[in-house]
Amino acid sequence: MKTSEAAKLFASKDDFLLLTHRNPDGDTVGSAAALCRALRRAGKTAYLFRNDEITAKYRPFAEPYLAPEGYAGRFTVAVDVAAEKLLPTGFSGKVDFCVDHHPSNTGYAPKSLIAPSKASCGEIVMQLIKALNGSIEPEEADLLYVAVSTDCGCFVYANTKADTLRAAAELLDCGAHNQELNVRLFRKVSRARMKLEGMIFSGMEYYRGGKISFVTITQDMLRAAGAVEDDLDDISGLAGRAEGAALSITLREQENGESRISLRSSPEVDCSEICAVFGGGGHAMAAGCTIQSSPEKAKRMLLDVIDEVWK
Amino acid sequence: MKTSEAAKLFASKDDFLLLTHRNPDGDTVGSAAALCRALRRAGKTAYLFRNDEITAKYRPFAEPYLAPEGYAGRFTVAVDVAAEKLLPTGFSGKVDFCVDHHPSNTGYAPKSLIAPSKASCGEIVMQLIKALNGSIEPEEADLLYVAVSTDCGCFVYANTKADTLRAAAELLDCGAHNQELNVRLFRKVSRARMKLEGMIFSGMEYYRGGKISFVTITQDMLRAAGAVEDDLDDISGLAGRAEGAALSITLREQENGESRISLRSSPEVDCSEICAVFGGGGHAMAAGCTIQSSPEKAKRMLLDVIDEVWK
Repeated sequence: MKTSEAAKLFASKDDFLLLTHRNPDGDTVGSAAALCRALRRAGKTAYLFRNDEITAKYRPFAEPYLAPEGYAGRFTVAVDVAAEKLLPTGFSGKVDFCVDHHPSNTGYAPKSLIAPSKASCGEIVMQLIKALNGSIEPEEADLLYVAVSTDCGCFVYANTKADTLRAAAELLDCGAHNQELNVRLFRKVSRARMKLEGMIFSGMEYYRGGKISFVTITQDMLRAAGAVEDDLDDISGLAGRAEGAALSITLREQENGESRISLRSSPEVDCSEICAVFGGGGHAMAAGCTIQSSPEKAKRMLLDVIDEVWK
Repeated sequence: MKTSEAAKLFASKDDFLLLTHRNPDGDTVGSAAALCRALRRAGKTAYLFRNDEITAKYRPFAEPYLAPEGYAGRFTVAVDVAAEKLLPTGFSGKVDFCVDHHPSNTGYAPKSLIAPSKASCGEIVMQLIKALNGSIEPEEADLLYVAVSTDCGCFVYANTKADTLRAAAELLDCGAHNQELNVRLFRKVSRARMKLEGMIFSGMEYYRGGKISFVTITQDMLRAAGAVEDDLDDISGLAGRAEGAALSITLREQENGESRISLRSSPEVDCSEICAVFGGGGHAMAAGCTIQSSPEKAKRMLLDVIDEVWK
């Protein structure tokens, strides 16, 4: 469906319920909240589904739009949700419309507005809001900036395109407070997170002369740092900062003693092939798996498999 | 002078020598190298002054343009140099033209192209190259992307404006390889740097219930991490990551035992007022000074002065 058609359809509906995806990130929360505000501005009743998985970092952006107890809505829109299994529990088969940018979108919704060339769902919602209301208000620009900027790591990730930068520029023109938002989203971290990063960088291990960087995060480390789930945002990205590492591995000891593994790589290594051995999966350059063993044992098993797979 | 006038003047000159500033950053190196390449494309002889202070991070961008031994040039252009004291030694009074974006530019050059509203000098050089040659080639776009992106921390710093993002978008359209450049400029760090960051985050101290964050970097730490000057890029920015800190302090023990201090703050604290007590200076939100004492003693002196100045 085209943006203009989607806007017309939305104009004909009312009582919107907007869904964010599991493990909500800035794109799903910012996009859904911006759309919610714009729909209200167009005279509609609109709320965000109360997704309890929204973390402290993004909760304040969603808070003013969360549905009251008992609100079910009559037109359900999934925002930035690539597949039905990523919907909050109970919404399978109940989505009326999907706005998304994931190339892997399964087309589960009866009607969709999907633009797989966009780095963020926020860029699609931005166009939709303009088609709906003719303009973007500063509060919406802030929420859309959250969506656009977080999905590309503040324009540093490989998905950043000229269009991404132009969308952000337009949001600044519409009044987005990038200065305050950047500090909040990308700059400031909790003292517990800093302490944990201290342990991570001090304890980083290297194999194959530095081609492999290895971070282990144990329950003891989390306790010592006072770190909770909210402090672990993108923690698996840290191992990859090491110069010379083609494969970076983050092993997180779970509360039940298992080891959850995250792999990131440059194109010369296939992460998904390695993770598949342990029943995991993902992409060639980013994959994950869980090994039912203690960190020390899981590390040895993993390195042995890597020796087999990556000659 | 307007961009079009500057382009006309440059077209009438030959044998350019382009100067980068002391403690060269990505903006001065990227801007000068891009301009150098564009001048050559316009049929001119042009070289960068061999600034020995260019660090390993930026050296590869400057290398192909560095002047051969004995080259003096006939038209000397200072690029991104705000004041004569920031010129390489021996160039006082010898600059013919200055291209710059610093609002504090002292107007030391007989002719100048200055746009203080720009976040980077790269954005000015970009317009100048278009006026000179009608287009920007991919190699120039890469160099200009280095200039624009590094001066705003990849679009995260407070100086990032809509125009900054649009300039970057245009450079991507011209063929800049932002993906590779971002990894190189903002993502990868040396193993020594990671080890040092581990020590920094583990040893971070807090005062006034967390309103002040304090990082001490001793010569012993540098030795233990194997860190050299190249590994210390923007190291004073780390203390400010601590959530809740309104004033962040980085103290670096020098080889001669003195303590070099860098202060960063939110608007409620005036860094320059604190540093002025020790004969230093800077801006309200970023200033520096040197205290002729050991780290431990300098820290006490500094905290005492802060107690006086910041009630």
